[in-house]
Amino acid sequence: MRPTGRLHLGHLVGALDNWARLQAEYDCFYFVADWHALTSHYADTGDLVANAIDNVADWIGAGLDPEQSTFFVQSLVPEHAELYLLLQMVTPIPWLERVPTYKEQMEQLAERDLSSIGFLGYPLLQAADVVIYDANVVPVGEDQVPHLELTREVVRRFNNVYFPVPPDAPSRGLVEPLALLTPTPRLPGLDNRKMSKSYQNTIDLADSADAVRQKVRQMYTDPKRVRADIPGTVEGNPVFIYHDAFNPNRAEVDELKARYRAGTVGDVEVKTKLAMAINAMLEPLRERREAALARPGYLRDVLFEGSARARVQAQQTLDRVRDAVRLRY
Amino acid sequence: MRPTGRLHLGHLVGALDNWARLQAEYDCFYFVADWHALTSHYADTGDLVANAIDNVADWIGAGLDPEQSTFFVQSLVPEHAELYLLLQMVTPIPWLERVPTYKEQMEQLAERDLSSIGFLGYPLLQAADVVIYDANVVPVGEDQVPHLELTREVVRRFNNVYFPVPPDAPSRGLVEPLALLTPTPRLPGLDNRKMSKSYQNTIDLADSADAVRQKVRQMYTDPKRVRADIPGTVEGNPVFIYHDAFNPNRAEVDELKARYRAGTVGDVEVKTKLAMAINAMLEPLRERREAALARPGYLRDVLFEGSARARVQAQQTLDRVRDAVRLRY
Repeated sequence: MRPTGRLHLGHLVGALDNWARLQAEYDCFYFVADWHALTSHYADTGDLVANAIDNVADWIGAGLDPEQSTFFVQSLVPEHAELYLLLQMVTPIPWLERVPTYKEQMEQLAERDLSSIGFLGYPLLQAADVVIYDANVVPVGEDQVPHLELTREVVRRFNNVYFPVPPDAPSRGLVEPLALLTPTPRLPGLDNRKMSKSYQNTIDLADSADAVRQKVRQMYTDPKRVRADIPGTVEGNPVFIYHDAFNPNRAEVDELKARYRAGTVGDVEVKTKLAMAINAMLEPLRERREAALARPGYLRDVLFEGSARARVQAQQTLDRVRDAVRLRY
Repeated sequence: MRPTGRLHLGHLVGALDNWARLQAEYDCFYFVADWHALTSHYADTGDLVANAIDNVADWIGAGLDPEQSTFFVQSLVPEHAELYLLLQMVTPIPWLERVPTYKEQMEQLAERDLSSIGFLGYPLLQAADVVIYDANVVPVGEDQVPHLELTREVVRRFNNVYFPVPPDAPSRGLVEPLALLTPTPRLPGLDNRKMSKSYQNTIDLADSADAVRQKVRQMYTDPKRVRADIPGTVEGNPVFIYHDAFNPNRAEVDELKARYRAGTVGDVEVKTKLAMAINAMLEPLRERREAALARPGYLRDVLFEGSARARVQAQQTLDRVRDAVRLRY
């Protein structure tokens, strides 16, 4: 996760909830992708470390457990940079240019300077991030599937050149990771646009109960419904998308939907109940987050210890690679 | 120097002689650019380490002194890879595409696969190689001047973004290195084409006296001179270019030129005297080379110790950079 700002409900349903579940089944590695933040934010690094610490507090809030999983910082495992460099040698530029997010982001983020070789190379740096841990699976969203396809292509080429041996030979090649696709509800922003920090249309995991109530009160809803007695549309209505995502009381949600369609409920009631549901859901996250932040030095220690642990594995993979490339003096 | 093969007379007059002289005046760093060898030879790495050891033996033969200068191996100082990654973030792709050697080599080495992002990035990796030691000057040939210009441009941009302070402020930015241009005689190959290992038209520093005699006997010379009594052309004639470069007996060279022009000397005499001059020049190099190779483990130790020394400096620069980029946890 790139430390470019606070985490919000979109991160929770799109990633963190899933990451927390995966811990039971996998040996998980979660990391602060600070170098990746530079690919698009190179001129804007003042808050990287503060964001990293804040994000990791949210990870713990969301149920990620640094005792069970490895939390680390990318730049504290410089082996990623060396493997990235070695992967560059076998990766044709057109493979990177045709990654769909490359041209998309160039167009969407026209105000940012994305002409750097670092931005072109970032899916390859991601490949290094993954294969340096011999990762078998990577939990990704649909939009990241082409990145994983690139990773698999690069691994096949690298193994072809440097590990020209049967797969069961003693010197194992790099591992081709699989995408672990988890369908997640697509959450719109509070204003029904794409959820994005830059639109200021997010509920952040660190928001207070008051802030949540206030933000929910201002949420976009069916614009045709100018009075409480006009029948409204539930489908595609952000207030009900959020109810579906965060209100565990299905009976209450169904009843609110029925009354909304019939024009027998006011927005205030629908939104008040939504704010209550979100706050009830967020409260234990806030407590774990605050407890983690309250222990002096704790989150830094988590990141340092995790990075040291990650580094041991990264070095083992890199040793295997150096042998295969014949860079051994 | 890239460890892609044996060193020859072209390396001696084009680089090593100059490098040996510079030791008296500068604190010099000379390195085996093994990662750079991968940019064009990624599929062909079996001899990298053997070439590295052999090249360093030739450095010592040519008068480079590992007590006085720092010899190191690029891949043994992985900090180069990290700085390269950070420089990538601020370097626009067009800056790399317009480096003259990029398109030139793409055309000249069409049989090699140079479409990789590693090949596009190699002048930037060179920039990292240089600035990580706060180098003030870099001894280069004319063809490398645009690379150093790129380095200076990247340093200015990097300093602009990350060291926005007066140059005398406590946190020093990266140093803009200057090109140290030393005019060197341009030596043709034995067959009068460009000197190149791949044309097999070189005299190697490791060649025996016999091999030198045999190679000189087969040298290209004035093709119109089919008999010894036909006046010949001295200008542009490889045999005389080599006499000028390696025969310290100016009177002998002048006399041979006069008789060659007059058609009063045979090729055998001209070439025999050339082979003698080259062998006399190479003999002390061969002795130092062989002495270095004869000490078990000596050259590896030189590279390990030099790399450890280099690494201390590289880490200091990288620490300064991490602080400036605000990657400090």
